[in-house]
Amino acid sequence: MRYLVTFSYDGSKFNGYQKQPNKNTVQDKLEEALAKIENKKVSIVASGRTDRGVHAINQKAHFDLDVDITPKKLKMALNSLIPKEIYVKKVSVVDSDFHARFNVISKEYIYKINLGEYNPIEKDYIYQYNMPLDIKSMKKAIKKFIGVHNFKSFTAADDIKENYERQIFKASIDLKNDILSIKFIGTGFMRYMVRNIVGTLIAVGEHKIEISDIDMIFDSQDRKKACKTAPSEGLYLNNVKY
Amino acid sequence: MRYLVTFSYDGSKFNGYQKQPNKNTVQDKLEEALAKIENKKVSIVASGRTDRGVHAINQKAHFDLDVDITPKKLKMALNSLIPKEIYVKKVSVVDSDFHARFNVISKEYIYKINLGEYNPIEKDYIYQYNMPLDIKSMKKAIKKFIGVHNFKSFTAADDIKENYERQIFKASIDLKNDILSIKFIGTGFMRYMVRNIVGTLIAVGEHKIEISDIDMIFDSQDRKKACKTAPSEGLYLNNVKY
Repeated sequence: MRYLVTFSYDGSKFNGYQKQPNKNTVQDKLEEALAKIENKKVSIVASGRTDRGVHAINQKAHFDLDVDITPKKLKMALNSLIPKEIYVKKVSVVDSDFHARFNVISKEYIYKINLGEYNPIEKDYIYQYNMPLDIKSMKKAIKKFIGVHNFKSFTAADDIKENYERQIFKASIDLKNDILSIKFIGTGFMRYMVRNIVGTLIAVGEHKIEISDIDMIFDSQDRKKACKTAPSEGLYLNNVKY
Repeated sequence: MRYLVTFSYDGSKFNGYQKQPNKNTVQDKLEEALAKIENKKVSIVASGRTDRGVHAINQKAHFDLDVDITPKKLKMALNSLIPKEIYVKKVSVVDSDFHARFNVISKEYIYKINLGEYNPIEKDYIYQYNMPLDIKSMKKAIKKFIGVHNFKSFTAADDIKENYERQIFKASIDLKNDILSIKFIGTGFMRYMVRNIVGTLIAVGEHKIEISDIDMIFDSQDRKKACKTAPSEGLYLNNVKY
């Protein structure tokens, strides 16, 4: 039976989502728990990886089990076997040809910036920014990213793809109680893409670059032309749609 | 010169506020930073200790320095020398007879309980409660704690005092977005006192005890008669007034 799981995790407690030789990744913890349930190795396929320090509110993944277990019991069993820094929110049965990565229709990321006083309790959960930002300009600038674009300039230089074209359907910036929330919904996001876009928006907000410079950065298809990568602690994978 | 500092900290990252032989306490970190500024040992006196796992939004403490440094520069120097899990929010000069513990007029504590879906990101910052609570009864019950009472039944059994009488001026319960916030303002709180009161309120909310049982618990002056101590992660020292 093929299962789809929706889960959240505290990215500051793991070495990223994806399996690694040194372990302590979200995937390792989930596969270790599934191996106990299935009594043999189980491979899990997520919608995509998240980097070290990046959080997930609704990450999704699929896997196959031979054991006969209801979604409700599987959810309970998984949550009793994984560390408290991961939480399985939902389990459902899906068709045997469902694929958690290939079937993705859209993904939603949120990047959080605290413009107010530093709060040590949120150290790993929000990017602290102590300089004034011109939010009006940032709101204009973010529109440049909506639509179909070649995002090569905004992708990790070592992330070699055949095709750097992606579509961003929606992008917005909201300020509430000193917290700036930057939201992106799109077909897919390459490595560091959201954090590089956010870094570029911050450069606009600081008046280090002009909004019109963004066209030039896109055209260059050169990562070195874009701005600093925003740090991982502010980034949340908020949703994955199929 | 005597200084008063207001600071916040993530209690999950330290072995409590108060200095200990094994170090890694908030007081140790602050005194280590002050020793670097003053070039000799400096003792710091806080409004009171907080236990391991308990957070502070506005803890206050005083100390004396011989070096000539403005409050603004001292704030910057301290924040550059302490770990990111502590933050000095404010520094001011006070009279040489000011005392951060003896001069306390009132303290405010907040205890947070999440009644909604578990969020792994908040694991160390809120008490997760998965059973229904009768909040109406809890709101009635909390009134029993307002006023002058002998709180011996609600104090850690090993916290031997001459006088267990304390006054709670205000106590309230608010529910917002599945988060229950229980607030107490009083003259002073003994060890585990807030967490034992919260544990008793939860027992009322679960209908394990009656509201009228609270009078009996007070009268017994026996810690064993009160209910379970609520865990540390939900507790915040929110303010100290002089």
